[in-house]
Amino acid sequence: MVDVVVAGTVALDSIKTPFGEVKEVLGGSAVYASVAASEFSKAGIVSVIGKDFPKKYLSFLNAMGINTLGIEAKKGDTFRWAGYYDYDMNQAHTLDTKLNVLATFDPKVPDEYRNAKYIFLANTDPEVQMKVLKQMKKPRLVMMDTMNFWIQNKKEELTKMIENVDVVVVNDAEARQYFDTPSIVQAGRSFLEMGPKAVIVKKGEHGALMFTDGSCFSAPAYPLEKLVDPTGAGDSFAGGFIGWLARTEDISPRNMRKAVIFGSAIASFNAEDFSLNKLKKITRDDIFNRYMMFQDIVSF
Amino acid sequence: MVDVVVAGTVALDSIKTPFGEVKEVLGGSAVYASVAASEFSKAGIVSVIGKDFPKKYLSFLNAMGINTLGIEAKKGDTFRWAGYYDYDMNQAHTLDTKLNVLATFDPKVPDEYRNAKYIFLANTDPEVQMKVLKQMKKPRLVMMDTMNFWIQNKKEELTKMIENVDVVVVNDAEARQYFDTPSIVQAGRSFLEMGPKAVIVKKGEHGALMFTDGSCFSAPAYPLEKLVDPTGAGDSFAGGFIGWLARTEDISPRNMRKAVIFGSAIASFNAEDFSLNKLKKITRDDIFNRYMMFQDIVSF
Repeated sequence: MVDVVVAGTVALDSIKTPFGEVKEVLGGSAVYASVAASEFSKAGIVSVIGKDFPKKYLSFLNAMGINTLGIEAKKGDTFRWAGYYDYDMNQAHTLDTKLNVLATFDPKVPDEYRNAKYIFLANTDPEVQMKVLKQMKKPRLVMMDTMNFWIQNKKEELTKMIENVDVVVVNDAEARQYFDTPSIVQAGRSFLEMGPKAVIVKKGEHGALMFTDGSCFSAPAYPLEKLVDPTGAGDSFAGGFIGWLARTEDISPRNMRKAVIFGSAIASFNAEDFSLNKLKKITRDDIFNRYMMFQDIVSF
Repeated sequence: MVDVVVAGTVALDSIKTPFGEVKEVLGGSAVYASVAASEFSKAGIVSVIGKDFPKKYLSFLNAMGINTLGIEAKKGDTFRWAGYYDYDMNQAHTLDTKLNVLATFDPKVPDEYRNAKYIFLANTDPEVQMKVLKQMKKPRLVMMDTMNFWIQNKKEELTKMIENVDVVVVNDAEARQYFDTPSIVQAGRSFLEMGPKAVIVKKGEHGALMFTDGSCFSAPAYPLEKLVDPTGAGDSFAGGFIGWLARTEDISPRNMRKAVIFGSAIASFNAEDFSLNKLKKITRDDIFNRYMMFQDIVSF
């Protein structure tokens, strides 16, 4: 049984930050999100890898309790991303993207995933997102991410997706871009009018805003003094968020606020080391302790 | 008797935003801060104006309960600022600055201000700030603001000031610039090591962070859907903050957190109209209601 289905990328990342450098390490949106979700729930990945994908990484995902049946191994090479961060760690600079097997990705959701109630469609072609969604039987909550490229090049398909999901999670630049407005608040409210029950706008070091009907929730960022690698922040946030909802089976706005904080807590751990190096070490207690720190950070 | 002394500018502002335009209206850091402070306490201004300064504006300040004895009227013209905001209202664009009488400002603190316990030194030449400070008898809490120009051109004098105050309030760009670091958290902690008890980093639409010994407080921005004119946001924030501290006579970190929220509440009202048009209308109840909204915005 799988509680949370995560559709997105499985990647080999090469990353340089002011604090070090790694080559061909495990990454990708579906990996970060499913590892984060599995802190609370049973997650399964829908994605694609090439024949060159290191077996040890699949073993790692299985050891984390993640179902990898939905990761199709195709002829060809695995998706690769290479990038770096300068001292301003808010901004990723892409050096190279090789789609490889991702270019022809035709998602197949395994039978044993189809009854899952919680779905996270990580950033990818909205038509691919729709294909995943159509294979699910009766999801209770569908969340999606997207990026500037699809807003610019596939706005119609993207709009259709947004109208069909429960939660939209985007960053502030994307929210502004979609509605061509400088106001995050206006953009958030406008997304709600399209259908979703909740819209989460991620603001990196400034935390996140969540808009639900008639209400706005502001979540702080955890004040990390030394961020080692922000890669995967957004996806581990989303994974932690949906993992918490699936665990508690409560999708009320009030519980979504808690989910935002759990997602932020996991994302803050994730940024403390490269790849999944930190997330694989943390315990439930670590997460709850950091949740309490968030309580302290905002209390007055 | 004056509880809060505010030293800074009294200005005639000409401002254009996407929502309208005003010419030669009352503005300046000391004006915004003292009007905000006077929501809670008795404030007095130390500043300078020219012979051309409209009497109605002095009457307005007096009607707001502000002591204007420390506003020196000198031969010459009043300080003027002209600027505009595009749709990205986070960024002020200066069209023209005429220092006029401000160029030779030699602050004189009236006798009846000298026993005040709460001092806000708004952004100005650090040497002028020091002159004001030296005239105060035994302040309980001194807060200062500054700007990029002084960090670049008078860092030594500025450093001496920072070492002599209790609270530093700067924006995120200034915090980063002073310590040449991309990390607001690092900058905040480094300011604390210089002596101040609290450091507040203003982040505009992203709210504010306050660092005190061993603790970090994150305050959200109020999610205004329509911001009319952000001019004076930082100064009305600072005025509301220090006004609350003076009223409660409690400078504990816990009460400073409340003060940050009161400052943010008043600053959010201020942005809803040009000049002091909104602040002059709001009541104590309006402010408390918005304070409660802030509670709701961050609660989880």
